[in-house]
Amino acid sequence: MATIHRQHGHFLEDFRPGDLYRHRRGKTVTEGLFAIFTDFSMTTNPLSKNLRYAHAYGFRGLVANPGLVMLVVFSQSVEDVSENARANLEYIDMRFGVPVCVGDTLEAETRVLGVKVSTRDPSLGVVHVQTTGRNQDGEVVLTFQRKVQVWKRDPAATVAEGEVAPEDIPVSLVLPPYVPTRKYHDLAYLSDENTYFENFRAGDVLEHSRGRVITTDHIMLTGILDNTSQVHCNQWMVQQQPERYVGGQLIVFGGIPFNLCLGISSADVGDNALADIRYATGRHTAPSFAGDTVFASSEIRAVRDFPGRPDLGILDTVLRGHKFTRKSEQVEKVEIFYLERELAVKRRSHYA
Amino acid sequence: MATIHRQHGHFLEDFRPGDLYRHRRGKTVTEGLFAIFTDFSMTTNPLSKNLRYAHAYGFRGLVANPGLVMLVVFSQSVEDVSENARANLEYIDMRFGVPVCVGDTLEAETRVLGVKVSTRDPSLGVVHVQTTGRNQDGEVVLTFQRKVQVWKRDPAATVAEGEVAPEDIPVSLVLPPYVPTRKYHDLAYLSDENTYFENFRAGDVLEHSRGRVITTDHIMLTGILDNTSQVHCNQWMVQQQPERYVGGQLIVFGGIPFNLCLGISSADVGDNALADIRYATGRHTAPSFAGDTVFASSEIRAVRDFPGRPDLGILDTVLRGHKFTRKSEQVEKVEIFYLERELAVKRRSHYA
Amino acid sequence: MATIHRQHGHFLEDFRPGDLYRHRRGKTVTEGLFAIFTDFSMTTNPLSKNLRYAHAYGFRGLVANPGLVMLVVFSQSVEDVSENARANLEYIDMRFGVPVCVGDTLEAETRVLGVKVSTRDPSLGVVHVQTTGRNQDGEVVLTFQRKVQVWKRDPAATVAEGEVAPEDIPVSLVLPPYVPTRKYHDLAYLSDENTYFENFRAGDVLEHSRGRVITTDHIMLTGILDNTSQVHCNQWMVQQQPERYVGGQLIVFGGIPFNLCLGISSADVGDNALADIRYATGRHTAPSFAGDTVFASSEIRAVRDFPGRPDLGILDTVLRGHKFTRKSEQVEKVEIFYLERELAVKRRSHYA
Repeated sequence: MATIHRQHGHFLEDFRPGDLYRHRRGKTVTEGLFAIFTDFSMTTNPLSKNLRYAHAYGFRGLVANPGLVMLVVFSQSVEDVSENARANLEYIDMRFGVPVCVGDTLEAETRVLGVKVSTRDPSLGVVHVQTTGRNQDGEVVLTFQRKVQVWKRDPAATVAEGEVAPEDIPVSLVLPPYVPTRKYHDLAYLSDENTYFENFRAGDVLEHSRGRVITTDHIMLTGILDNTSQVHCNQWMVQQQPERYVGGQLIVFGGIPFNLCLGISSADVGDNALADIRYATGRHTAPSFAGDTVFASSEIRAVRDFPGRPDLGILDTVLRGHKFTRKSEQVEKVEIFYLERELAVKRRSHYA
Repeated sequence: MATIHRQHGHFLEDFRPGDLYRHRRGKTVTEGLFAIFTDFSMTTNPLSKNLRYAHAYGFRGLVANPGLVMLVVFSQSVEDVSENARANLEYIDMRFGVPVCVGDTLEAETRVLGVKVSTRDPSLGVVHVQTTGRNQDGEVVLTFQRKVQVWKRDPAATVAEGEVAPEDIPVSLVLPPYVPTRKYHDLAYLSDENTYFENFRAGDVLEHSRGRVITTDHIMLTGILDNTSQVHCNQWMVQQQPERYVGGQLIVFGGIPFNLCLGISSADVGDNALADIRYATGRHTAPSFAGDTVFASSEIRAVRDFPGRPDLGILDTVLRGHKFTRKSEQVEKVEIFYLERELAVKRRSHYA
Repeated sequence: MATIHRQHGHFLEDFRPGDLYRHRRGKTVTEGLFAIFTDFSMTTNPLSKNLRYAHAYGFRGLVANPGLVMLVVFSQSVEDVSENARANLEYIDMRFGVPVCVGDTLEAETRVLGVKVSTRDPSLGVVHVQTTGRNQDGEVVLTFQRKVQVWKRDPAATVAEGEVAPEDIPVSLVLPPYVPTRKYHDLAYLSDENTYFENFRAGDVLEHSRGRVITTDHIMLTGILDNTSQVHCNQWMVQQQPERYVGGQLIVFGGIPFNLCLGISSADVGDNALADIRYATGRHTAPSFAGDTVFASSEIRAVRDFPGRPDLGILDTVLRGHKFTRKSEQVEKVEIFYLERELAVKRRSHYA
């Protein structure tokens, strides 16, 4: 008889540059998953709300908002990549492909691009990976790199340090064509008339007016995503080692404020977007906890044409999330999220 | 470069009697939305639980309970009507039309009927509106008036006071016909044998035995409904102005106790209802907060025939919600909800 | 005019050995119910996650995990059997039949097998029942006995003590056949390679590494299941009688830790299971409350052939749930759940 403690997930010494993990399970985007995440996130885009509208635009069904696509693909990589992570450091070059609609099944795989031991703390290191999600037809829905700080299982273990070049994942944003005979105008009342491409000016900063508190519901939400990281749901574990786990508090899965910031910005910049195109870089600049109220702003960095699509334009934005904390009598604004974000936005000239 | 604070929703000075708002987005009743709200609400009517039963009664699919229909239509009106409201004062003449089944898409519009500045506090006023929800085929599913107390954006602004007559919205309750060859009897065990029309007597008061605590889950529930009102989810905001926001507490969206009271009453008065017909008037007589346990009672005011439907009868009821509070050693029963409610209830003679 | 307090559910004196309750309502397994429970429970089996995979294995749709089947059938029996219960004592001989997929409608009925007054406390007694759940085609999906401690309504009432023999409910586990031409191998990366039948050895104890805190979300989860027991959701009631209700705390519905323990064990013993076969006996050995972090272990009691299915083997296991409590400086491990569980597990020789 043996007592077996199978530790799930990999540790720093398990990663080898070039290795490929095909993640387990996959996940079908049921109407349940869709409703919980699309709606909870405060997304306002009618493509994710109104089936009549989504069909009129040429989509097969209700369209998963970019945050949900990211959450489903990312969460599948957690067990192999970051179940034993200390922190997620950076999202890099996150690009969207074909749209995801209700009923699609997403699977994901991750290539290890680099492994490096921390010089300051040899019990830790940075793993650099490239994760790609595909639908049931093998089409890429999302690909991105990320860097994550991972614990070692055995502090004395040898680590396979190194770096390989990212794979060239063919991904291109697929959008339904603009069909002049479709009666887009008739449905224009369903989105905000102040969020067409023509409304945006480089340099503007939109301070989004809405905020949303995170409650302990983050634990259920994270579980529903199959995110197996223990720092988000294992209260007893974090309480036993407060020095290791931010004072013994459950930290909110970064995907929750990520999705909330996208949603909060939606009414001001995303209501007439056909899709998010690419996130060049993104970071959780401070942790979130139950009780935090999340706010967001969008800076418009540039407005440009969408090649081959005169009905659309591209917005280059920076989406920032923040929360407020109070120290004695002082209120401090803390940035919690930073995302360089490109959106494909409808032009009023064609749609309204 | 400009920093833009787009305030969403309208303020008192924005409303003009006669104006029509076609609300944005619309909402498809996915199986996710349906499960969360129908089930959470403690509804017991098998039309909303059991697809086999709903089909046997001639419905196209699982039937949205009246509370869900009301929540989806109402919530769509929040951004335009009450995102900047202080309080919802009254529901008036809420009438149901065609049934809503899973998969339907609901859209809503609101006519401004009246605007009036408060004589006691000129920073506030009352807006009187008429909201109508329709399905993907343009059929009316719900129409109602409500009065809501709305803040002014600018205390010095001029307000377009006035009143116009309500529109005559053609709405009639649509129910599947009674078909004697259908085997209703075979399914009679699925509903409560004590809740047929013949069981009710005018003057009876049913104290419903079940209660249900509201937790911070109200925040997620309200978000899932796309209700954008900040007083239900923006913890930081309400904490900064406790004098404006009931002591700095998040107030529970009235639709939550509304739906809970309907659900709690369901086992005693709604289990054999084919539909709710009309709510002549309704009010949230006290606010609810996380931690409150909601109870309900139904007073039977009258029992009458349903014209043209000998298989059904009409119950005129008053549904009341309450909670208990403890002040020092004293327990106080606080009424939180009042609704004059007509239901179409099956007769035992035809169905059991 | 009369004020009527209809008390729902039966009390000890209402039960008569041999009586049959056909439970009300039934419940369709919508995608909403499915997503909430399957995903929240930390289940890792791709049959319940990935529609492509479920189809490839010959199932009609996403497969409800055993915990969800149990929760839906059990919860339907609560109103009649245990709404007025003090405690659920034991599950006995719980056997699974045909698989439950998304979209199925389950109904349940319960036979009273025995009634016995407590010798220590005459206001209580034990009811022994046999509950069976069937799908829309009348096929048995689950049958089990349980013993539950039920309050008397009237302490002086006469109780119909007695015992009848259990019915012989014909139930047999239905599984899709093994079809050598199906490309199981191609999908083998979607489940854990360490959880094939060949991986298990009698005597091994697997201490599952993951834990999950229960929050007040248990209240919403229990409501979504239509479980009407008040001790899980009526905060005011339990606070008024702390001596009757474990100190005035809402007790977590046992189905929640039951489902969580199954889910937590899933990555180590259930990832390559085609089904759970039978639970010979099960008990909640201590109550759970919001704030408890649930852990689990699986003891492999025996490994044996599956008659007629050379592609499968049977694991006889004991699934134990536990939590930790701290008394002054002492940490105590408290067992909260015990389940003798048989699983049908794929053999690597046939599937990988």
